[in-house]
Amino acid sequence: MLSEFSLIERFFARRAATPRVRNDAPLAPRAALGIGDDCALIAPPAGQQLAISTDMLVEGRHFFADVDPHALGHKALAVNLSDLAAMGAAPRAFTLALALPRADERWLEAFSDGLFALAERFDCELVGGDTTSGPLNICITVFGDVPSHAALRRDAARPGDDIWVSGMLGDARAGLGVLRGEWRVEDDASAAYLKRALERPEPRVALGLALRGVAHAALDISDGLAGDLMHILKRSGVSAVVNADAVPCSAVLSGLPVDARRACALAGGDDYELCFTAPAGAAPEIARIGERVGVPVTRIGTIEPVPAAGRAPSIAWRDAGGAPLSLTLQGFDHFHAD
Amino acid sequence: MLSEFSLIERFFARRAATPRVRNDAPLAPRAALGIGDDCALIAPPAGQQLAISTDMLVEGRHFFADVDPHALGHKALAVNLSDLAAMGAAPRAFTLALALPRADERWLEAFSDGLFALAERFDCELVGGDTTSGPLNICITVFGDVPSHAALRRDAARPGDDIWVSGMLGDARAGLGVLRGEWRVEDDASAAYLKRALERPEPRVALGLALRGVAHAALDISDGLAGDLMHILKRSGVSAVVNADAVPCSAVLSGLPVDARRACALAGGDDYELCFTAPAGAAPEIARIGERVGVPVTRIGTIEPVPAAGRAPSIAWRDAGGAPLSLTLQGFDHFHAD
Repeated sequence: MLSEFSLIERFFARRAATPRVRNDAPLAPRAALGIGDDCALIAPPAGQQLAISTDMLVEGRHFFADVDPHALGHKALAVNLSDLAAMGAAPRAFTLALALPRADERWLEAFSDGLFALAERFDCELVGGDTTSGPLNICITVFGDVPSHAALRRDAARPGDDIWVSGMLGDARAGLGVLRGEWRVEDDASAAYLKRALERPEPRVALGLALRGVAHAALDISDGLAGDLMHILKRSGVSAVVNADAVPCSAVLSGLPVDARRACALAGGDDYELCFTAPAGAAPEIARIGERVGVPVTRIGTIEPVPAAGRAPSIAWRDAGGAPLSLTLQGFDHFHAD
Repeated sequence: MLSEFSLIERFFARRAATPRVRNDAPLAPRAALGIGDDCALIAPPAGQQLAISTDMLVEGRHFFADVDPHALGHKALAVNLSDLAAMGAAPRAFTLALALPRADERWLEAFSDGLFALAERFDCELVGGDTTSGPLNICITVFGDVPSHAALRRDAARPGDDIWVSGMLGDARAGLGVLRGEWRVEDDASAAYLKRALERPEPRVALGLALRGVAHAALDISDGLAGDLMHILKRSGVSAVVNADAVPCSAVLSGLPVDARRACALAGGDDYELCFTAPAGAAPEIARIGERVGVPVTRIGTIEPVPAAGRAPSIAWRDAGGAPLSLTLQGFDHFHAD
């Protein structure tokens, strides 16, 4: 195979070193030292912190062996940028560690094209990495800037908060179901729409930034709304009431059998939408933010105190009329359940 | 297998969250926010930068399937700390992404013990990570603090500099040769010594910190002296004259056939010693630093200008008497050559 060095040079360092241009103005590199030394050197602006997240993607677990490598390059970075978005952090840089079974140049070219297309959109610079031969594995660590005390944490939900989600939920899991043959959709356009939702999630970076100082708690929905919302509840020591029928679904998803649709929307993985809480009084501002950044935002429930001191946080599901719903969502198998 | 969440909780988050104590005084966490949120939050001290390095270790490529998991936990972090050492950066934090074929609790316990034993020695805090099922793969990203402009870079070697190495070279590659049956050593103690050199490299963190403001260029020797020194030469635009017989070797390595010994010392991988350059006048100070931090330091050559403008940097090898040596080191197969 190509040597490690020539791989890095050919597909990654060159792109990383390309003078970056935005609005026709050249941009200075955001790292003091990037690829080619023992370490990259970066520092957040004064008064800010570096938000750091790492995600590892494995064939068969997070993507199929025959996935379009351009889409895979996109998604590998997108899921990391989504973590920054959920924190209210502005993308700055990333490292890429890559194990490859062989040096397939066409694959690498498409993968790096997909990766850098997204990186350049978010002005996120590749500052270091590692390549090795081995079973296909992609590990990205991403860095963003966030002012101290402005980070959107999971432990900041308060009773009385509204619960919001961005975008529409469930399409990615529905796309996985189509690829797996679990269910069928009527037309090719619908199948393509769902597949795209699975393969090309859009990190909600602008929304996360706009929610600084407005939202209380936030996270990105990677493992399904039900399980991820529980992370907020547990860390904040609160419970939730959620209107399951208010959870926004696409027209395509609405065409699936009701059980599949609900399971996809409430417990499907790979959405990479934001779930956040905010004081009820902030609702008009959040609606304006959604319009400004071009991302639908929907109120789906409220945060409540746990019923009694020491009781475990929980989610009470309701239907549109407010009647309790008994949902069995645990164990719904999504793509990267571990 | 254990769910991702319980894996993280059981073997990693608990240790990460253990109140850290040094010299009987509790230490505050060095991260503002660690495991359990979308991102960790850290910031270097005022006037400093964050040095970042990432390494991916793959079974069969960087370690054998039957490696002692405690040693593997040590080595996975050690090779990353070695990159910080080579930069003159003080360890601060790391993230761990781990793909595991199965949740073998005994294996995980030993791996995490080896990992945290080293992390605690260097006050390096686990701040985030990811676990998934998949072919065994360990990706660590490490973060250190280094004052702006004090970092030991690869591009700072100057003609007239001495070339130094720490410790002794070649033992790790010799240990690999023993495990592979390429050669034999006489006694079990020698075999164990070489295996330990391969499996438990000691990151030269204290040496790297002490060389701030003293050394010009530095890197850690992971792919063999000859190849790694070339990285300094190319990035600095200089050449080198190296006394091959001055390269420090252990008594055990000296017992190997001369060709194997020389190949191990000059082109073996996995040494994780530092190679650095410094002005000739700094030699006495460097000797004192070596004594103070308890690491042998040895002058092995000098940096020279490239013979003519535009000529490629190169290494001229000499024997102890100063006579030119013709060495064919390229292609010597070490553990993780890619």
